[in-house]
Amino acid sequence: MPMDDTRQRRADYFYFQTMTTRWMDNDAYQHINNAVYYSFFDTVANNYLIEAGVLNVTKSPVIGFIVASSCNYKKPIAYPAKVDAAFRVNRIGTSSVEYGVAVFAEGEDEPAAFGTLTHAFVDRASGKSVPIPAETRKALERAITTR
Amino acid sequence: MPMDDTRQRRADYFYFQTMTTRWMDNDAYQHINNAVYYSFFDTVANNYLIEAGVLNVTKSPVIGFIVASSCNYKKPIAYPAKVDAAFRVNRIGTSSVEYGVAVFAEGEDEPAAFGTLTHAFVDRASGKSVPIPAETRKALERAITTR
Amino acid sequence: MPMDDTRQRRADYFYFQTMTTRWMDNDAYQHINNAVYYSFFDTVANNYLIEAGVLNVTKSPVIGFIVASSCNYKKPIAYPAKVDAAFRVNRIGTSSVEYGVAVFAEGEDEPAAFGTLTHAFVDRASGKSVPIPAETRKALERAITTR
Amino acid sequence: MPMDDTRQRRADYFYFQTMTTRWMDNDAYQHINNAVYYSFFDTVANNYLIEAGVLNVTKSPVIGFIVASSCNYKKPIAYPAKVDAAFRVNRIGTSSVEYGVAVFAEGEDEPAAFGTLTHAFVDRASGKSVPIPAETRKALERAITTR
Repeated sequence: MPMDDTRQRRADYFYFQTMTTRWMDNDAYQHINNAVYYSFFDTVANNYLIEAGVLNVTKSPVIGFIVASSCNYKKPIAYPAKVDAAFRVNRIGTSSVEYGVAVFAEGEDEPAAFGTLTHAFVDRASGKSVPIPAETRKALERAITTR
Repeated sequence: MPMDDTRQRRADYFYFQTMTTRWMDNDAYQHINNAVYYSFFDTVANNYLIEAGVLNVTKSPVIGFIVASSCNYKKPIAYPAKVDAAFRVNRIGTSSVEYGVAVFAEGEDEPAAFGTLTHAFVDRASGKSVPIPAETRKALERAITTR
Repeated sequence: MPMDDTRQRRADYFYFQTMTTRWMDNDAYQHINNAVYYSFFDTVANNYLIEAGVLNVTKSPVIGFIVASSCNYKKPIAYPAKVDAAFRVNRIGTSSVEYGVAVFAEGEDEPAAFGTLTHAFVDRASGKSVPIPAETRKALERAITTR
Repeated sequence: MPMDDTRQRRADYFYFQTMTTRWMDNDAYQHINNAVYYSFFDTVANNYLIEAGVLNVTKSPVIGFIVASSCNYKKPIAYPAKVDAAFRVNRIGTSSVEYGVAVFAEGEDEPAAFGTLTHAFVDRASGKSVPIPAETRKALERAITTR
């Protein structure tokens, strides 16, 4: 699973949110469990869509289903740390988009973990693939970073 | 399961922490799942102990095991809201303590949910019950509220 | 938080489901985290309603919201153990019902934990309180245990 | 994120475990949340190591940290379904191993999701990279599939 290690600094991301960790995030090895990072990832991605005004969790007729995800873990983090979740758009297709996502420890510029999420847009009622709505596409294009 | 509904305003609590919710916290009914509130509760309680300097998650020789918990849910909350988790000490015994805990929606003075957690202190290595250490007891006594 | 310790054997429960634990269920103290028990509890309760034919997760017009919950933890359990979640009905009101729930380690007749969940029935669309539907009430009455 | 779609049938995997889903696994879109699949993945991988006798969660001096993970989601699954988690070894290095993992709906031979997990072995006390212990390597080699 090779993944591009370059372009993984804070300046390579577009949108950030500080997130609190929880006691139960630490697993038996006393670090944040690997699966929890994906919860940081899909939270920051959906937060961006919500703040951009193109997603209403319960009402939007077109919604994004996760069809692929990946993560490289570089340094362990443990509760009670806070983390900065980072978001950008890597590439946009007709009906799907790949996000770049990362988690930074507070004050650090090298990510604790980084990865990707791919949203395929579907009609909420039918579950059928649909093109990315125009307003959503605009919001996604703004989140492409070029450094 | 009757529970005292009085003394459930922000002024009745001692310590607060704002916590972020996560996309996956919403369940199929599109509100924060009932079990997740207990994660807010044990996080705010342990945060208090850590900030008071009486708990090191991986090293403290005496740790608190949860032996009882309860929650009354008054108003649903949903991601992407942030929540204010609240903490106080209800009563202190020889080797256990009952915390009062609550979750407030931002800007509200009536709790979305409130409840209790009981920590029984044990020796980390043996799991045997031990008296509350003196420094911990002092930190707990400070968190009793009298309003 | 006093709770009735009697009537907490397997024979005091009506419905059981064996559940698998997960690596991440163990927290930093290397036992199943306290909040996870509530996930066993609401899963066994909803499983009963689904199997009884009175709940369709996505379609039922009347659904149960959790308005109260409690748990007494008696013995720690740790992944990779399987657990037997147990369910019964404690009492039925006009629009709400209190379940008795427990978790047993495999082969044991004393519970690792036991508690309560209270479902208040609401109209899914409006969120308003409604009387328990007749078919649901029948299914709940069958789950009352008398030992 | 290209990933090999071939060799993704039940016969391509070595070890299986049926897992129960939980009410809270369903997110606001009413399917199992994407992050939960990684919990199925790390559970089946660790279960294999435990059953093979080469991992004691709390005592083994050498443990595996997840350093990379990925998942392709093909068909949504929803609680209350049970799932069959599948495991194999894709490749073994000096101090790390890539697992192939998948989740199958009951009775289906095409996976609902499949992916990878990479364990890097470290000394539990120091967190330093160490070679895979000989007994663990033998257990891993047995789980390579050749179809």
